[in-house]
Order: sequence, then C-alpha cells, then structure tokens
Amino acid sequence: MSGLPADGHQAPIDELVAYLARFVTEERLARMRRVLDERTRYLTVVVEDVYQPHNASAVLRTCDCFGIQDVHIVENRNQYRLNPGVELGTAQWLTLHRYGSNEHNTRDALRRLRESGYRIVATSPHTHEVSLDRFDLEAGPAALLFGNELDGLSCEAMQTADEHLVIPMYGFVESFNISVSAAIVLHRLSSRLRSSDIAYRLSPDDRIRVMLGWLRSSVGRAEALEREFLARRKEART
Amino acid sequence: MSGLPADGHQAPIDELVAYLARFVTEERLARMRRVLDERTRYLTVVVEDVYQPHNASAVLRTCDCFGIQDVHIVENRNQYRLNPGVELGTAQWLTLHRYGSNEHNTRDALRRLRESGYRIVATSPHTHEVSLDRFDLEAGPAALLFGNELDGLSCEAMQTADEHLVIPMYGFVESFNISVSAAIVLHRLSSRLRSSDIAYRLSPDDRIRVMLGWLRSSVGRAEALEREFLARRKEART
Repeated sequence: MSGLPADGHQAPIDELVAYLARFVTEERLARMRRVLDERTRYLTVVVEDVYQPHNASAVLRTCDCFGIQDVHIVENRNQYRLNPGVELGTAQWLTLHRYGSNEHNTRDALRRLRESGYRIVATSPHTHEVSLDRFDLEAGPAALLFGNELDGLSCEAMQTADEHLVIPMYGFVESFNISVSAAIVLHRLSSRLRSSDIAYRLSPDDRIRVMLGWLRSSVGRAEALEREFLARRKEART
Repeated sequence: MSGLPADGHQAPIDELVAYLARFVTEERLARMRRVLDERTRYLTVVVEDVYQPHNASAVLRTCDCFGIQDVHIVENRNQYRLNPGVELGTAQWLTLHRYGSNEHNTRDALRRLRESGYRIVATSPHTHEVSLDRFDLEAGPAALLFGNELDGLSCEAMQTADEHLVIPMYGFVESFNISVSAAIVLHRLSSRLRSSDIAYRLSPDDRIRVMLGWLRSSVGRAEALEREFLARRKEART
C-alpha cells in the first residue's frame, strides 16, 4: 500500500482505482469486476510446508478458479516455489500471506487467522473428523489447512485445529495428493457457499483494495502513474 | 486370464479365488472385500495423451480413491508413464486398458466404450455444455474423457462426444490442471452416484474377476500356486 494514506483516510483509494482503471481496456475491466463479484474471504486456504512447485502452483490456480482470494503460506522447512506452467499467473490475482521468517510460523499464522474470526479447519483424518458433505458452513468463516506431500499437517496445526475435515475415500490408497485434496475440498465448499444464504462476498472496503492490487499488477508503469496521481491530488488540495 | 477356461466354464474362477485367498491375511482379505463393494464401472475414465507422469499417476490414485475400476489410456503421441511416488501402487488395483498400437487410438477406444454401452462425455467447454452439478447421472453409464496438459482433448474426441461437461469457474484462469479436473469431476459424480438409486456396483461376474486380479498381484508366487491349483483340479476330475 505504498504511497497510500493510513486507514481512516481511505477516500483517495476510490479515486486512485478510478484513475488506474482508465489505463485498462473496458473488456479487461469488466472481466475484473465479474471475477471480483465472486471473490470470497469466507473461506481461506493455509498451505503448510508444501515443497513441490507444481503442487503449490496447482493450489493457487484452484483458489483463483473458485474465487478464494487469500492464501496463507507457511514455510517452516520448505520454501514455497511456483511452477509458472501450472500456476499460469494466478498468484497476481490472489492475496498471498507468507509466514517464513521465524520458527513459529504455523503458530503465528493460525493465531492471526483466529484473531480475524476464522475457525481453524485441518483437512486431515482425526478421531473427531467430519466428512466434506457434512461440514457446517454456516458456523462462520473457515481457514482450511492443507499439509505437505510427505508428512501432512504438523502436530502444531493438528492440535490447534478446531475441526477436522475429511474427504470420504473408498479405495486402497488412503490419501490424496495435496493439489487434488485442495481442489476437491475447495470445489465442494465454494459450490455449497455460492448456493447458500451466507454473505460470502468481499466487503466494499476489501473489494476496492483487491481491485487496486489487480490494477497495480495489470497496468504498465502503475507505480509511476500512482505517484503522478498522488502528487497532482496533493497539489489540487493546497 | 492365462490358464483359465474360456467363458461358459467359469466355475473354477470361484474356486481359484478361494484358493489364492488362503495366502492372504484375513485383515487384507477383508480390506479387499470392502474396497470391492464400492467399486464401479458405471463411471469410467479415459485419459488422452497425458504426458506428465505426476498427472497420470494422480488420476489413477483418484480413481482408486473414488472406486472407479477402469481407466482407459489413449496414447496417440505421448506415452503414459507413472510416478511411483504419486501413484502409490494404485495401478495394480485398477483395470487399465491401453490403446497405443496404431494411429486410431482415440477412435478405437471410444468405439469400444460406446459398444459397451457408455455415453461418451468430454470434460471440456462446448456450446452445448452441461455443468457438473446438472450432469444427468441417471441417463446411463458414462465414460469421462480427460485431455492432455497442453491441448486438452483431440478434435476426434470432441466431435465423437455425446455430451460435454464443465466445472463452473469464477476466476481469471479458465482451465484446471488435468489431475485437478479429474479429481473434482470424479469426486462429485461418484459421490452423487453413491447417494443415488442407480445400481452402480460391479456385477457378480466382474467382482470375481477383479478379485482374482487383486489376489494375483497380492500373493507371492501367485502364478506357481495357480498352476499347482489347476493341475490338482485336473487330476481330481480325471
């Protein structure tokens, strides 16, 4: 949010968005608005220590497709790397939150999510698990945790979780690839969400901030344009 | 089916299965029967020219998890290779049908499936597409076609298809990774199938043949034991 006034003085964001929007084609802008209409923060995704770039990338692509705006990336041991051929540029349309600077990344991420009003939902078998179709969406916003390819979720994540969600399986193999697991869970829950009465869409404030981020990454020279806009605005007021 | 009498003389299959089952632990046998109970041929999967081993492998693993017994593998330009770390041995629990010996692999595969009573369903956008939740499961067995990573389904597959199925998407990216797409479609349709009144389970004849295949790959020295069994059986009858 460089160059933008602190909270409480948000009026210029609307103006800045309107200004930057002039540098995008009508078609593209319409597309952005359609996608924005379907974005949600009611469901959010946490990936813990995923290490294969094609898996990490597939999860981002799935989030974009199903309108999940935020992805929380916890890097305890493995650095999150993307595979451009799989991710297809979706990272720029998502809000990525990275936790990788200390040894309590999982704890920090989950604490912050809980403080923001999320239930912590581990997608992993457990004695008190609930199956995907029976998961109670109405009980409030949910942060869905996906573990890494080898070990699944960490002990900390499993113990901190409020709920445990599983995909019913009927074969010999008893687990899914992480990208597959995320796709199934996100498809099912976002589909149920869209046909529910839950107010899942972004708040007006979130909408404008997400739109600003999209415009910033869509418009060439956005930074220079933004400086120009702010300078002119300051001039006009003095 | 080496060593087994031709159709019409199937009695020994039951006996052979019972014989081989003696070399498997009770627990494992119970597991096999539970999995067998949930297997289906009402839905079947066709993968056309998938070339990344981790995608091919993830599709097989998904089929096993959701009880889809048959996978039809069409290799026009790309050879189907598996990644053992993703596939986790599921190939041995599935019936794989490979079409790779001539230039009309897609045509051969689809003709054979149609002759076996399957509707040909391309999972790909089309002017007459139907969305996943509205797909009519009751209209008969369905072969679900998934195309490759770069080009999707071939023209031949698209033109031959009776129906076109799509997963509704709400983001900027308008396609899924093949393993993700297969997972979402197979999860949703198999889940709807299990809660429907459709007789989706294997026929008694299919059950015993699938079980025989599983025992053959589970029992050490299965081939030698089988020869022994058949020799003793022949002796007893003469």
